[in-house]
Amino acid sequence: MDDIQALIFDVFGTIVDWETSVVAELKAAGERHGSASDTDWKAFAREWREGYYATTKRIAHGGAGPSSVDAVHRELLDAMLDTPESKWSAVRPFWDEATRQDLTLSWHRLHAWPDSIPGLQSLKQHVIVAALSNGNVRLLVDMAKFANIPWDVIFSAELFNTFKPNVDVYLSTCKHLSLPPSSCAMVAAHAWDLEGAAKAGLKTIYIPRPTEDQGISKDIKAKKDGGRFDLVLSSVEELATLFAESKVGRAQN
Amino acid sequence: MDDIQALIFDVFGTIVDWETSVVAELKAAGERHGSASDTDWKAFAREWREGYYATTKRIAHGGAGPSSVDAVHRELLDAMLDTPESKWSAVRPFWDEATRQDLTLSWHRLHAWPDSIPGLQSLKQHVIVAALSNGNVRLLVDMAKFANIPWDVIFSAELFNTFKPNVDVYLSTCKHLSLPPSSCAMVAAHAWDLEGAAKAGLKTIYIPRPTEDQGISKDIKAKKDGGRFDLVLSSVEELATLFAESKVGRAQN
Repeated sequence: MDDIQALIFDVFGTIVDWETSVVAELKAAGERHGSASDTDWKAFAREWREGYYATTKRIAHGGAGPSSVDAVHRELLDAMLDTPESKWSAVRPFWDEATRQDLTLSWHRLHAWPDSIPGLQSLKQHVIVAALSNGNVRLLVDMAKFANIPWDVIFSAELFNTFKPNVDVYLSTCKHLSLPPSSCAMVAAHAWDLEGAAKAGLKTIYIPRPTEDQGISKDIKAKKDGGRFDLVLSSVEELATLFAESKVGRAQN
Repeated sequence: MDDIQALIFDVFGTIVDWETSVVAELKAAGERHGSASDTDWKAFAREWREGYYATTKRIAHGGAGPSSVDAVHRELLDAMLDTPESKWSAVRPFWDEATRQDLTLSWHRLHAWPDSIPGLQSLKQHVIVAALSNGNVRLLVDMAKFANIPWDVIFSAELFNTFKPNVDVYLSTCKHLSLPPSSCAMVAAHAWDLEGAAKAGLKTIYIPRPTEDQGISKDIKAKKDGGRFDLVLSSVEELATLFAESKVGRAQN
């Protein structure tokens, strides 16, 4: 990691806990509007998230669709509520235009995992800490203000008119940082994201999170243990400790 | 200004004092390399800056050229030093490749005007504070880290493959902020920049600076005084005071 000059972080799931945050907003909206009290809001949030994955993946591979995740989230919400025989039909009558718009923006109001902010604060003393998300720019700006995320710079796939894991997204980010991909490391809780980054020539750092890569994260290993990613760490703070120690080591040599 | 949700700031000259910073680096390099001690470094810096203006303006109007200001600065420096009969020929023999590269990067190490940082810190409590510069992304990231500029988000004309005052730069910035231009205000120490922003439909705030728009800044007036810009203010801190008072006003209504 000695040559790394920029750490490029995935955001949803890696830096922020989307599930807890969105489920809380869905539940609150449900209670405000008198929706069925037994609605499984976690299942609702996960289905919404799965739809986001499917849509952005399709567009990343050349399919048509909106370049803003706000638009993706809204289209998916409408489809979940309005499709005939949807399992969420009990909710439909209560959620008007304003509620739908507000819930779409719940993805701008996500709380950070406890280690994210202290880890990033420490890391930015040593390297550039950049966001690189499929979320649109405004979403990422609102989220950084809401959760006090101290990005040095925010990159959104929206700027490059496609989505991760399209290799152009990673290469364009490195280009704008004036760095060769080998001097950049992608940090994510998703193997598919790191595979895209590796194809572009970036280093890869996997941080498993309880809500992400469910079922596979336990099997993911670092190269030194026979795996495919450069590092597998438990938190952003562990990554910060590595950089702080490496810097001390370099200063002593 | 009640509807303004984002303030979009020019950087060189408006937020940072490029002249003092670059002249100091030129002078230090001159002394290190034994260049003629009577070199007029302020004139050197101003000629460099004028070259930057001429090049970016040409490209903004559709001309060919590099999209990164780092490349523009380096090409201009080489031309100033290497052109036969250049008035800087006394300097030429001393400045090797490493010095030229380091001086090109002096544009990443600019100090803020005294009111800029406290003003931006206050403003970001109320609105999105964005950079929008012709400087390339990496330059703006380095400068923000160097001078502790608390941007919520950094936009560079490099992202849009042209330069200000091309109207696409302002419109693309508003689009990525998910805001209509009328909810955004451009803040700059350059009339030409605000004229471009006004063409795109943004509000305009002029802050005169001693090094910028020399000779014309004193004649620039706000609309209420018969001028063409929405506001003419003395500092970023004065702008912050206006926003803080406006917010108190809104909260009391």
